[in-house]
Amino acid sequence: MVITLTTDFGVRDWFVGTMKGVMLRLNPKATIVDLTHEIPPGDIRSGAFALAACYSFFPKGTIHVAVVDPGVGSKRKAIAVRTANYSFVGPDNGLLSWALAREKIKAVHSLQNGAYFLPEVSGTFHGRDIFAPVAAHLSRGLPNQKLGPRLEDFVRLDWPETRHSRGAVQDEIVYIDRFGNAITNLDAAALRSLRHDDVRLFRRGKPLCLVAEFYQAVSPGEAVAVPGSSGFLEIAINGGNAARRLRLRPGDTVTVRRG
Amino acid sequence: MVITLTTDFGVRDWFVGTMKGVMLRLNPKATIVDLTHEIPPGDIRSGAFALAACYSFFPKGTIHVAVVDPGVGSKRKAIAVRTANYSFVGPDNGLLSWALAREKIKAVHSLQNGAYFLPEVSGTFHGRDIFAPVAAHLSRGLPNQKLGPRLEDFVRLDWPETRHSRGAVQDEIVYIDRFGNAITNLDAAALRSLRHDDVRLFRRGKPLCLVAEFYQAVSPGEAVAVPGSSGFLEIAINGGNAARRLRLRPGDTVTVRRG
Amino acid sequence: MVITLTTDFGVRDWFVGTMKGVMLRLNPKATIVDLTHEIPPGDIRSGAFALAACYSFFPKGTIHVAVVDPGVGSKRKAIAVRTANYSFVGPDNGLLSWALAREKIKAVHSLQNGAYFLPEVSGTFHGRDIFAPVAAHLSRGLPNQKLGPRLEDFVRLDWPETRHSRGAVQDEIVYIDRFGNAITNLDAAALRSLRHDDVRLFRRGKPLCLVAEFYQAVSPGEAVAVPGSSGFLEIAINGGNAARRLRLRPGDTVTVRRG
Repeated sequence: MVITLTTDFGVRDWFVGTMKGVMLRLNPKATIVDLTHEIPPGDIRSGAFALAACYSFFPKGTIHVAVVDPGVGSKRKAIAVRTANYSFVGPDNGLLSWALAREKIKAVHSLQNGAYFLPEVSGTFHGRDIFAPVAAHLSRGLPNQKLGPRLEDFVRLDWPETRHSRGAVQDEIVYIDRFGNAITNLDAAALRSLRHDDVRLFRRGKPLCLVAEFYQAVSPGEAVAVPGSSGFLEIAINGGNAARRLRLRPGDTVTVRRG
Repeated sequence: MVITLTTDFGVRDWFVGTMKGVMLRLNPKATIVDLTHEIPPGDIRSGAFALAACYSFFPKGTIHVAVVDPGVGSKRKAIAVRTANYSFVGPDNGLLSWALAREKIKAVHSLQNGAYFLPEVSGTFHGRDIFAPVAAHLSRGLPNQKLGPRLEDFVRLDWPETRHSRGAVQDEIVYIDRFGNAITNLDAAALRSLRHDDVRLFRRGKPLCLVAEFYQAVSPGEAVAVPGSSGFLEIAINGGNAARRLRLRPGDTVTVRRG
Repeated sequence: MVITLTTDFGVRDWFVGTMKGVMLRLNPKATIVDLTHEIPPGDIRSGAFALAACYSFFPKGTIHVAVVDPGVGSKRKAIAVRTANYSFVGPDNGLLSWALAREKIKAVHSLQNGAYFLPEVSGTFHGRDIFAPVAAHLSRGLPNQKLGPRLEDFVRLDWPETRHSRGAVQDEIVYIDRFGNAITNLDAAALRSLRHDDVRLFRRGKPLCLVAEFYQAVSPGEAVAVPGSSGFLEIAINGGNAARRLRLRPGDTVTVRRG
């Protein structure tokens, strides 16, 4: 059984290793896969985007554990969500919600049954003390309802909607990746409806770059917006770092239109 | 059988991958888990602290390999230590000693039997040439005494002791984690004996922060000292980086007392 | 079956995790090992060097996947190469060529059979859409000839040759590792023929450091050139960072001679 981990714990310290130890002690046959541990500390939206971008490539039955948890030790709930294809485990702070928005929800449970936690639960490291052991128990077949009371719902992050008016679409940058590509909220389907030879991306009314199919549609060093692998339009520089060169940041708005 | 790795090799190059290749060639069924490879180069004390903080969360029988080895190629010994619950493999420079201080030692052996090394041993990469193959052989059930002569003892790092006087405890910062939390040498048991509503942490006579149970005991942006997940008092900023903001470094001394 | 990954995808985002999900969906029993994901973006030569330095330590039959692919989406070919001992999968841009130079080549195939790709192939992420699923199919025993037409050859990077004249050897720095060690193209065998007590390394005619067997042949803080673990002469500082201190970069030339 595959268990994935998405956290802001980094790999400098022993936090992730400890979670793996806890899981392997409970289920030596678990296959544990790191999605990323380099979510910026406490950045729930980046964590939610990363999880949503890749969870669906995993085998059916995979248990996705995500821990970006600035409220650890406070009153925020901890949850396990079963969907038609996967299980998700993490804090109930919206982190799971962009992935869950694409899934058929079967059940949401509040993690309250200490029998499936470590014997001693710290105030600061629920990844080790609650989420890791709960995921390991689920991977061994524990039914979700053993974990605690059923909940009606979970916390959802709002997704920035694109705004369409008079043939233009206003988008927002939602994630900057390691290559400096700036991923927007404009999805591939919406993009297809716009696609013409002369569609461009504008910032504050000024043209920023062409919209094309591939990085190589422009010369090395030039900017281009392409349908990215995560399913959204992303702004790139052929062979360069777009976020740095064009000073793009999450939350920035851009517009796609002909012209 | 689980083998863990704690090194200062980083993940930029191929060093860790090579160690895994060597181990899988000898034992294809080994489950290899990274604790961390980002120990600062040559920083034996940080490596010792990281290993001690997490080794005990792993299944009984786990083989813990640690390589922070500034003396590689010199006359320092290489050792394998069997305890009641685990095996430890690494250079005999103190790196294993803080974990071993918590374990019941069964036997210490010097790694001298070249039959369990790679055929060619380099002067600079014993992680690949000695420690990885030895760990893989142990994971297949090789008895420790095959590895070389038994030793009476191993090199121990001194642990900075807290100093108690007149209701105050002088502590030392021993580790800065990725979040900027500064972990001290004051353990949870000692802390419990001090705990009152008005216990504070002082630096050079000036109050630095409250001692509390959770980060959220203070407002966002404020400093607080809490019992950390590693079992020691740690200095944090709710939502921020304490080491950077308060300029805390390993070796700094602080005092906990009422007032 | 072991599958290794060498990429420039970094570990900040979800790219590597996604590749692993794709592979585990096709072959749940695959053992996936990271060589490194921190090749500088688009730096094919560093990727080629890293792969060549460690691929041979893996079990016979290992499938080595490498993706440093600045030409993704363009006309560059994608290939699978079977050698006497291993399989290699990646873009045909030279990335695999320094490892392949040491192997007995059995067959080179062009990846063209979409039956072994993900159903939808993006223009920007062939690691996920082509290379991961092809490697997973190979790990389940798919014969290479199913992947596409056989090719006569593959793209080779030129390897900088050392130049020998009148007892001196002119070398080039080919890789800087995480410790700041500068690895040259002078291999251990050639070095042995030069070895004398008074062999030194020069840069622009000025002596830079001694050539010795171990870092400890010099005092802490001093530079020394030693036969490195990758089989080449490397320039190090005992306890320090040679590349930073001596301002060494890939492509720099140095000379080894007596004097």
